[in-house]
Amino acid sequence: MLSEFKITRRVEFAETDLAGIMHFSNFFRFMETAEHAFFRALGYSIHTTRLDPPVCWPRVHAECDYKRPLKFEDEVEVHLLVKEIRSKTIEYVFVFRKLGAQVEEVARGALVVASVTRNAQGQLKSVPIPMALAEQIAAAPMG
Amino acid sequence: MLSEFKITRRVEFAETDLAGIMHFSNFFRFMETAEHAFFRALGYSIHTTRLDPPVCWPRVHAECDYKRPLKFEDEVEVHLLVKEIRSKTIEYVFVFRKLGAQVEEVARGALVVASVTRNAQGQLKSVPIPMALAEQIAAAPMG
Amino acid sequence: MLSEFKITRRVEFAETDLAGIMHFSNFFRFMETAEHAFFRALGYSIHTTRLDPPVCWPRVHAECDYKRPLKFEDEVEVHLLVKEIRSKTIEYVFVFRKLGAQVEEVARGALVVASVTRNAQGQLKSVPIPMALAEQIAAAPMG
Amino acid sequence: MLSEFKITRRVEFAETDLAGIMHFSNFFRFMETAEHAFFRALGYSIHTTRLDPPVCWPRVHAECDYKRPLKFEDEVEVHLLVKEIRSKTIEYVFVFRKLGAQVEEVARGALVVASVTRNAQGQLKSVPIPMALAEQIAAAPMG
Repeated sequence: MLSEFKITRRVEFAETDLAGIMHFSNFFRFMETAEHAFFRALGYSIHTTRLDPPVCWPRVHAECDYKRPLKFEDEVEVHLLVKEIRSKTIEYVFVFRKLGAQVEEVARGALVVASVTRNAQGQLKSVPIPMALAEQIAAAPMG
Repeated sequence: MLSEFKITRRVEFAETDLAGIMHFSNFFRFMETAEHAFFRALGYSIHTTRLDPPVCWPRVHAECDYKRPLKFEDEVEVHLLVKEIRSKTIEYVFVFRKLGAQVEEVARGALVVASVTRNAQGQLKSVPIPMALAEQIAAAPMG
Repeated sequence: MLSEFKITRRVEFAETDLAGIMHFSNFFRFMETAEHAFFRALGYSIHTTRLDPPVCWPRVHAECDYKRPLKFEDEVEVHLLVKEIRSKTIEYVFVFRKLGAQVEEVARGALVVASVTRNAQGQLKSVPIPMALAEQIAAAPMG
Repeated sequence: MLSEFKITRRVEFAETDLAGIMHFSNFFRFMETAEHAFFRALGYSIHTTRLDPPVCWPRVHAECDYKRPLKFEDEVEVHLLVKEIRSKTIEYVFVFRKLGAQVEEVARGALVVASVTRNAQGQLKSVPIPMALAEQIAAAPMG
């Protein structure tokens, strides 16, 4: 059972803006990068056909609270925690911590994603999270 | 007094992902584009030195609820509404509507931004929204 | 016969970097945006199934010479010119001009794209540009 | 003396497009990421004030030849080689190799960058590459 995962990233030049800090939209890209690394740690690509049915994970909700800016070349840890796993959705929380002399929380985000597959008519419909995956994921204790 | 503003955008190829739809992070970029167009409609660049003090607008909170996907070349209206203007912050709501045969809401987002300036020591600190700007902005009636 | 096309774009905040100018990679995205608008002017989406065969256009070569920077909220004209149309490839040139008091060339780029389709085995292979499209495109006189 | 450097990257979801491959503009971002890692290996941030004068590196020219696509989660090695270091400019070549069973070259790019600083009037002007940096960089033998 896996309920959390950490990645680290260095803020790249193209991710900054003229205010000299990482553009706020990129925190959402970092969340997704952590989510996909979490799936690889479970043995799957997020874009797999090995699950039955082959689900994809459209975002239902995304949010972020910003506390301090990230600058170019800052190293940041993105800590994914499974807040809740339900029949057809997963809610993740992401804690961003800037690494260095003092580790500090710079932002905190969340994603709610839905388990979805295509039916015979090619339409996307919500389905239960495939068992092979669901039985490996547990909610993390929240501090 | 201005309390809302609309822009339209066409989804570009580089804004899509391998799922064939606009990447969820780009909704936040569209929100910001609408915010900056709203400022130009008020007579200011968001990146101006003509206000006293010269404020910038770091994001405190961002969120989005996704209802339907946007695809390549879809035209989307981003409707900014001022939800609340307080002494030092503004909260915006953004309604995304896909244009076409049936206009439909595809997503709804929000940004909370803070009025901030640099003090003599170069540090960012929160300040009241400059009067010249504040007196032009009013909250929109919410449906 | 169409051999050139112009679009205008305003540089967005998320397209700038901490140097205060538009990130150099975004010139390539603007080129592509002009290419896709050119296709719409020809009556097709670049991502169409209405052509026989249904071709896509992978990039073979891309380049850009940078002369002056673009800044946030600058308005730029991207002028696409068909440099050469061959049996299976098209070469475009793009002239970037900053609009304003003095219109000036800020950059000049090029793309070489190949007409490609999937064969019965699902593999991409180079094919002649579909006639319905090829007969509408002509090389522009180069200054 | 340093004349080459390698980084590896995994293609992220937001870097793909609806064609299912990495968007061609992102190869330029990967080149820059390798350039900045090369500078850190020399002991400097690309965005440093520790050099005299404090230079920045606007792009004069960028190009890329694409041979094979990169897909989501592909791991790619970006191999930077200094092609030529002149008084005021550096030319880099970048070889992209997809890692895996068979290492294969997927693209080859180049950047020409200029050493530039701000004069007393705040204007950017071209200057010789600071000695502390120039004496650490040598052209790589080209195969």
